[in-house]
Amino acid sequence: MKDSLLILSGGMDSTTMLYDYRDRIALAVGFDYGSNHNGREIPMARLHCQRLGIPYMVVPLDFMPRFLKSSLLAGADAVPTGQYDEQNMQSTVVPFRNGIMLSVAAGIAESRGLRHLMMANHSGDHSIYPDCRPAFVQAMSQAVSAGTYEGIDLVAPYTGLTKTDIALRGKLLGIDYSETYSCYKGGEHHCGQCATCLERRQALREAGIADTTLYDSDTH
Amino acid sequence: MKDSLLILSGGMDSTTMLYDYRDRIALAVGFDYGSNHNGREIPMARLHCQRLGIPYMVVPLDFMPRFLKSSLLAGADAVPTGQYDEQNMQSTVVPFRNGIMLSVAAGIAESRGLRHLMMANHSGDHSIYPDCRPAFVQAMSQAVSAGTYEGIDLVAPYTGLTKTDIALRGKLLGIDYSETYSCYKGGEHHCGQCATCLERRQALREAGIADTTLYDSDTH
Repeated sequence: MKDSLLILSGGMDSTTMLYDYRDRIALAVGFDYGSNHNGREIPMARLHCQRLGIPYMVVPLDFMPRFLKSSLLAGADAVPTGQYDEQNMQSTVVPFRNGIMLSVAAGIAESRGLRHLMMANHSGDHSIYPDCRPAFVQAMSQAVSAGTYEGIDLVAPYTGLTKTDIALRGKLLGIDYSETYSCYKGGEHHCGQCATCLERRQALREAGIADTTLYDSDTH
Repeated sequence: MKDSLLILSGGMDSTTMLYDYRDRIALAVGFDYGSNHNGREIPMARLHCQRLGIPYMVVPLDFMPRFLKSSLLAGADAVPTGQYDEQNMQSTVVPFRNGIMLSVAAGIAESRGLRHLMMANHSGDHSIYPDCRPAFVQAMSQAVSAGTYEGIDLVAPYTGLTKTDIALRGKLLGIDYSETYSCYKGGEHHCGQCATCLERRQALREAGIADTTLYDSDTH
């Protein structure tokens, strides 16, 4: 039954979930919160939804760069390079971003009679982003259920998977990951050096997928 | 210690909390989500914050009337009259509104190093609004705590109080409730007939407070 709303960024994880759960997804919702990479992700998300015949909408969250502090909202030069486990990547955290996106999505789901919210957080997100951890997902799930008339539930089936596990699922589903966008710097091509780029390359390599992404760091 | 963020609408309940907890409130945050009454509430909220020397900001949530379904967001004529317990008042519910406001406030609090979020929901809200009930408040509190680096906690000290209890606190604090705004129709004067007006009049009467509010229903 098509009664789920998926939060779809246009990156690898949520795009995989879109294909993986296409039979249950009635609506995909993206958010434009003024980050460097939103403008690159959104066309990718739209492309996949058009291909699958799934309605897609983008919710502008104009207040986020004005009121929330994060290097992700401050232009490409502010985004650090290097692995996720380095301390400086904490600057890319948008405070309580997933809580905000899930809450808005819960309101949209309730407005449209949809019963389930889906998000594509995975185990690799946990170390740096508190609002990707299982404890957050579980509590937020209870909050959404208690705070809506229909008792909407939150489904996060990739919480226990690694990004490589997700890429392996995508491989089976036939997803062309060059039609997804990850880079936090938000350039025309992936930079190849920020944490999201490094994580993307590693997952594709470990999943045995030929990585046809154009990385700026390979061409300079 | 001043380390709390209060969600302040400019109605009776949150205005009372502003005075009640003035020594702990570092920042008051209002939301303009396009409802009929936001334009009336916000100047009241600003007035009290100026008087108490507490910083105040208004976050525009422009997406809400576009993406969420509620008579509260559809103009004064769409708001029904009558008591809260009547079925038609359900149309005034803005789906998951408190979840959205709390999530945005949590992001702002984390961006500014504040440790506590305060909201002024009370026991009378519970029957109609699922996102005012103790089960929601408790789950949302856990979600905010788990989803932020600093483990921000949500404080809702009026959850067990009635609106009359709140008015009695305000009476002790010397609050002039004619400097608050409640009416969901959002007119220049309170309509006197919508559920929020009826609830406001009853609370002031039961608390033994002379109600100097100008109600349109008394003058027509």
